[in-house]
Amino acid sequence: MKVHNFNAGPAILPAPVISQAAQAVTEFNGLGMSLLEISHRSKDFQAVVDEATALVKEIAGLDDSYKVLFLQGGASTQFGMVPMNLLDASETAGYCNTGTWAKKAQKEAKQFGNVLELATSEPDNFTFIPKGYQIPDNLKYFHITSNNTIYGTQYHAYPKSPVPYIIDMSSDIFSRNCDFSQFDLIYAGAQKNIGSSGVTVVILKESLLGKVNRTIPTMMDYRTHIKENSLFNTPPVFSIYVTMLTLRWIKEQGLNIIESVNRSKAELLYNAIDSNPLFKGTVAKEDRSWMNVNFIMENRDLEPEFLAFAKANNCVGLAGHRSVGGMRASLYNALGLDSVQHLVNLMNEFAAKKG
Amino acid sequence: MKVHNFNAGPAILPAPVISQAAQAVTEFNGLGMSLLEISHRSKDFQAVVDEATALVKEIAGLDDSYKVLFLQGGASTQFGMVPMNLLDASETAGYCNTGTWAKKAQKEAKQFGNVLELATSEPDNFTFIPKGYQIPDNLKYFHITSNNTIYGTQYHAYPKSPVPYIIDMSSDIFSRNCDFSQFDLIYAGAQKNIGSSGVTVVILKESLLGKVNRTIPTMMDYRTHIKENSLFNTPPVFSIYVTMLTLRWIKEQGLNIIESVNRSKAELLYNAIDSNPLFKGTVAKEDRSWMNVNFIMENRDLEPEFLAFAKANNCVGLAGHRSVGGMRASLYNALGLDSVQHLVNLMNEFAAKKG
Repeated sequence: MKVHNFNAGPAILPAPVISQAAQAVTEFNGLGMSLLEISHRSKDFQAVVDEATALVKEIAGLDDSYKVLFLQGGASTQFGMVPMNLLDASETAGYCNTGTWAKKAQKEAKQFGNVLELATSEPDNFTFIPKGYQIPDNLKYFHITSNNTIYGTQYHAYPKSPVPYIIDMSSDIFSRNCDFSQFDLIYAGAQKNIGSSGVTVVILKESLLGKVNRTIPTMMDYRTHIKENSLFNTPPVFSIYVTMLTLRWIKEQGLNIIESVNRSKAELLYNAIDSNPLFKGTVAKEDRSWMNVNFIMENRDLEPEFLAFAKANNCVGLAGHRSVGGMRASLYNALGLDSVQHLVNLMNEFAAKKG
Repeated sequence: MKVHNFNAGPAILPAPVISQAAQAVTEFNGLGMSLLEISHRSKDFQAVVDEATALVKEIAGLDDSYKVLFLQGGASTQFGMVPMNLLDASETAGYCNTGTWAKKAQKEAKQFGNVLELATSEPDNFTFIPKGYQIPDNLKYFHITSNNTIYGTQYHAYPKSPVPYIIDMSSDIFSRNCDFSQFDLIYAGAQKNIGSSGVTVVILKESLLGKVNRTIPTMMDYRTHIKENSLFNTPPVFSIYVTMLTLRWIKEQGLNIIESVNRSKAELLYNAIDSNPLFKGTVAKEDRSWMNVNFIMENRDLEPEFLAFAKANNCVGLAGHRSVGGMRASLYNALGLDSVQHLVNLMNEFAAKKG
């Protein structure tokens, strides 16, 4: 029985990535050793880092003014590294508060300098993406969270920034076409669209760095990792390899196809939610995320029964985040349209039963 | 043809760990999904973290006054986290400088407070472990590096510390019996004796914390990870699983057997070095590491030929660290005595050829 994996992250990966990753754990490159047993200084692993780096730049369409890093610690570590590296104590950064992760990023920055919350949808339970606010041109940088995994909102047009532009793309990087060159620093935990947990991709303009007057701990300093091409110390070898495999798969598909499939999946599910009298969406329609579809039932008492019905029919990961409840279907790149159709069929079947 | 894996880390792992890890990447716990695709909040992964935590405490023989954390960033990140969490700007910590990693730990601590280098073997090229020095009882803590991977020295008796005792055990944790309770904070990158790269085990007394007057970035604060049992944010799921499997294997063997085998492997190789006129060791005999055996040739011009000969006979990872040259055979827990015997045979064969 096929499992339909709607996990919010770690999440479904392309089947060929899984089989190649398993093979590499058994034996890598015909070396007679597992990928887990080879030196990170070996030419075999250097080739993995080099290919992953090149794939990120190629897929993002970025030139050599950008550096690509594979770091540890997740986006949560980036919440601190960004201000530590970019924001002096007397300077001010602008943040837009669109959900739990955006707020955490903002909170962490306050430890290092001044933070101006330029806009927030928190009073409305993060049900929309704020628009039309001014971004002062004297800010050190401007930070947004591209997709809000917990609340199910996503930027479908990015505001223009007159200052260095920082974006947390953890949950929607490489899920659609984008002019990545509008950003100065992009970071993304890999465990949603570009790999497994344990590695965070950071893409940044080196020219941003070296402008703050604080001592930065060695491992927190982007320059440490730029200088050593992500090999300052032992990197998360396996996670970088899985990301490299996933990037290969993304390149093979192409962002056009990936965007088109992701659009179809999201439309199929949102149409089902809107047309089914038992269900309803929770966020502003124009800001609905293609990655994380949040919905509830008109009669919320029925939710446990629906979740149990979906689970019994091989749907995994449909419960909403513990902080918001309801349902959340995550539709990352590797999830097939067939899984979304299966969920829609179950919603219709459930509605017919409750008719 | 069997590969004899003398890599210094990432390094050889037990064969059953490799096969179980590969199986988990293919499908985990009969869930119809890869381990890489399940939620870190699932009961299946919680069981992994719980078992790994219990195994660390059981193998180390530590009680509940110690907390066990699975963090990212390697020992290099701990070099900064230790002083950030424990050392105020006006306080002094003592370090013993026994090699590259000990020196890096010390250097990082200087960013946060005062560092007293209590002893060093650097003027003698780190060829011994300093002994007999005084450790003042007004230090905030005392830090040592248990095994020096690059130079091939190891503590065979630990000095007594009158102050909180911090130890980097990255390259020899669980390789022999030890009274772990003499230490207050133990850290170890997993990729030598207890797993693959991407996770660092930290074992610490919670009572050490909360005594410094600085704001600690959330991800650098041990209390963040204690409070959430290493699940504050998405952890390195696969690396923690591989560590759990490796800890199971260590428990099955028992530290007595592991110590005995490690002693036999080291004695076999050091005896071969001492009895073979072509080779010689590089460090004080009483401080020789059981984990990393460094040796050179009397005629150093022959080293490339010997390394090529060993490589042609399926020995991997025998070249010394790029900073010291010569040969280094790493004999971590998972390396069999047969691999050491194979190397010794090659050394004898090479000597006979050159006889």
